[in-house]
Amino acid sequence: MSTETTYAELTRWIQRVHALGTVGELLGWDEQVNLPPGAAEQRAGQQAALAEAAHAAASDPRLGGWLTQLEAAAGLTADQRAVVKNARKDYDRATKLPAEFVREKATQDSRGYHAWAKARAADDFAGYAPVLAKNLELVKREAGHLGWAGREYDYMIDKHDPGMTAEVIGRLFGELKRELVPLVREIAASKVKPRADALRGFSTEGQQVFLREVTERLGFDYNRGRIDVSLHPFCSGTGSDVRMTTRFKEHEPLDSLFSSIHETGHGLYEQGLPADQLGTALGIHAGMAVHESQSRLWENQVARSRGFWQCFEPRLRAVFPAQTAGVSTDELYLAINAVSPTLIRVDADEVTYNLHIILRFELEKKLFTGELAVADLPGAWRTAAAELLGLTPPNDREGVLQDVHWSGGAFGYFPSYCLGNMLAAQLWYRALALRPQLEEDFARGDFTWLLGWLRENIHSQGRRYDALELARRVTGEELSPRSLLRYLRERYGALYLR
Amino acid sequence: MSTETTYAELTRWIQRVHALGTVGELLGWDEQVNLPPGAAEQRAGQQAALAEAAHAAASDPRLGGWLTQLEAAAGLTADQRAVVKNARKDYDRATKLPAEFVREKATQDSRGYHAWAKARAADDFAGYAPVLAKNLELVKREAGHLGWAGREYDYMIDKHDPGMTAEVIGRLFGELKRELVPLVREIAASKVKPRADALRGFSTEGQQVFLREVTERLGFDYNRGRIDVSLHPFCSGTGSDVRMTTRFKEHEPLDSLFSSIHETGHGLYEQGLPADQLGTALGIHAGMAVHESQSRLWENQVARSRGFWQCFEPRLRAVFPAQTAGVSTDELYLAINAVSPTLIRVDADEVTYNLHIILRFELEKKLFTGELAVADLPGAWRTAAAELLGLTPPNDREGVLQDVHWSGGAFGYFPSYCLGNMLAAQLWYRALALRPQLEEDFARGDFTWLLGWLRENIHSQGRRYDALELARRVTGEELSPRSLLRYLRERYGALYLR
Repeated sequence: MSTETTYAELTRWIQRVHALGTVGELLGWDEQVNLPPGAAEQRAGQQAALAEAAHAAASDPRLGGWLTQLEAAAGLTADQRAVVKNARKDYDRATKLPAEFVREKATQDSRGYHAWAKARAADDFAGYAPVLAKNLELVKREAGHLGWAGREYDYMIDKHDPGMTAEVIGRLFGELKRELVPLVREIAASKVKPRADALRGFSTEGQQVFLREVTERLGFDYNRGRIDVSLHPFCSGTGSDVRMTTRFKEHEPLDSLFSSIHETGHGLYEQGLPADQLGTALGIHAGMAVHESQSRLWENQVARSRGFWQCFEPRLRAVFPAQTAGVSTDELYLAINAVSPTLIRVDADEVTYNLHIILRFELEKKLFTGELAVADLPGAWRTAAAELLGLTPPNDREGVLQDVHWSGGAFGYFPSYCLGNMLAAQLWYRALALRPQLEEDFARGDFTWLLGWLRENIHSQGRRYDALELARRVTGEELSPRSLLRYLRERYGALYLR
Repeated sequence: MSTETTYAELTRWIQRVHALGTVGELLGWDEQVNLPPGAAEQRAGQQAALAEAAHAAASDPRLGGWLTQLEAAAGLTADQRAVVKNARKDYDRATKLPAEFVREKATQDSRGYHAWAKARAADDFAGYAPVLAKNLELVKREAGHLGWAGREYDYMIDKHDPGMTAEVIGRLFGELKRELVPLVREIAASKVKPRADALRGFSTEGQQVFLREVTERLGFDYNRGRIDVSLHPFCSGTGSDVRMTTRFKEHEPLDSLFSSIHETGHGLYEQGLPADQLGTALGIHAGMAVHESQSRLWENQVARSRGFWQCFEPRLRAVFPAQTAGVSTDELYLAINAVSPTLIRVDADEVTYNLHIILRFELEKKLFTGELAVADLPGAWRTAAAELLGLTPPNDREGVLQDVHWSGGAFGYFPSYCLGNMLAAQLWYRALALRPQLEEDFARGDFTWLLGWLRENIHSQGRRYDALELARRVTGEELSPRSLLRYLRERYGALYLR
């Protein structure tokens, strides 16, 4: 076959494999949104059959042949080389793990989740420790099978963020930590405190109306997506079928609003990928850090800004006149930008959040090097929490047992959240440099310039570049925590450190 | 491998293939209920990738090997033989059609739908005729590939109703026609007429409440299923995840109610299949005629009965006091059992409906034998409509162009509807013979005896027996139109021919 024909065969095939993946994602969405309570087992069977079929397609020997031919071919464009490189990575992951290992890992992942849920309920780390140790052993073996022996933690990081390493993250997080820890202490000591009970009695119907208006104005295309209700908010799907979820709490309207804007950021990214390239490196996101940069940028830099609320405060008051009557503009804005260190990551404000991630990264890293034994995790967690957050967990439920990630072997995932925050702030200042009147746009309800700029520079680029290269190309600077620190100081300093 | 091991491998594999099929069905449900308008093309790609993966699994050579071994094995139980026989049929359908033919057929099916929609809108049969002729040619070729040359129409019938033939249907329909045509004429001439405007202004919310109560009382398990809204009502899914849909019209509350009870009948059947056997002949429905017998039995024999309305009339009046205030019990019951011949099958009452089916069967049969040319269909349709319904379509939109089925090559499907009506009536009288107080049960809102009897005799049997054998076993008689005629005369005679 000619190179062009082979390349066409390859892309057709990987797009087909990707389509099967999106079907699995849709089943997952449906499970959270629609599944009858009694259908869990049947759904598990459907997912297993689908995964088996998708794996058969992803490991088809023809793929290997096409890849070998294309890797040796001269004259591929840079885009084509990116597609081939990404396809090779996927193919190796699909073919290099022994079937016996895959079975063992799948069983352990499921067992791990249940062991974690049980341990958390009982605050029993000791009972969970052997499971966690087994998880760690398995991901190390996985890395070994794929040629990353000796660089196991980098393998796990690369899985979520292609091109990223523990060394780079360690440097970036170290720099961030030095200035962020004192900043959080300062804010926590401030006399300015948000009113905890400012916003109460917001009907679900009203929240839905307001939410729809906000997310549509930001640019989410409801002709190519939808929003539904689920227990935990998430965003799934891609291209022309992006599905977000949210939940409504009567006394916490900002929870639903901001988590939905966060998911909208993810959704805008997925809706902005090149439709005809879905599944190839040209039509898939660049990794979790870049994904998170999009959700955080819209959630934080945009939707917690004064400009944004100049537009939407009147709308909020129009939908909820009684509920907002006793709340001043400044009180509302402070509630939107509340900062208060907490032990629980998922409850953290956007300033403190980064410290939760640094804590996890430092422990994960030591687990992989062997500096830290699994049995010593709870103590190490308490020490780190005291150092970083100024808080010591009274038990492991509020400490090392709080997150689900490690129970399924998802090590190396946490850093993406903080890397995303860094990139979001860096993109924000670059955007402001190009268009200083950005907040004035927002005040008029106009988000088109920002979305257009992200579409062109991030969304339409797919996975051509990794997070570091993307930061360089779009902002003209290396990825660093400087913009994030500047942003946090500017926004929260003005509120808390006057 | 031992016979037992081979049998276990076979069932595991066919259950996996079936699970992939149910995923496709879920995508279809989602398309009707949830899909964002702009996602149609992406969904088509997902369905194509899934179909390709399912076909790869269904035509896996290992399946052929297991089947050959089991077909030669001694000592299989009757159940196991039924499973092997059904799996062989599926395997042959998956493997005996040349890839080139499958592609041609898929393209033609899609083209056919669009050609039909266009022809119907423009009332242009001549423009559609070549497409229909091509459809007919393709299904004949399909029958030939599968060894049914010379029995092409029987092949198409067997596809929907295993074991059924045109000869049997011709005999049954002939017998039914003789007595049904004059009965419909008598009823049409009756002075008794339902009030067309009796039921108006029924809110969607109220209809939903009433519908939920009715379907739950009939036995639909909402722990293992759900009901949503779509443009056209349908029922999909199986086992513990059965999904029905309905639509609400303010001035036609009976439309939504009875179509939902119809879908409930389908849903009860699917929920009653043996959960651990889903996808094998022991855990799949026995064909469309039996499926339709279940939907019709609940919709007609049960839900149009006096007993049923003794229970639910007070509930309907409680939910809709104003809307039902001016409607007497007799008027309500007559509206529920309205009969009025119409040219359009989907608008037909349960008496006339059967004549619409007989009309289509007789034309289909002649198309396959060659007695009737495609070009002569419109005239033949008009003649048959005048003879059977006493009505002559003023154009082809209300004649030969009204149904979608043939446009996708679905010949041999229509007879199932009428066979289902026959079987429903036959089951009804058998049930009454075993439990004469059945309508008294209904009046108390108790449907458990009937559901239990159907569970035991129909649902739990899966595809062990074809429709004819099932009728014989459950009712002690050959399938015949006598029960249907008796039922129609009893119920509608009492109302219209007093």
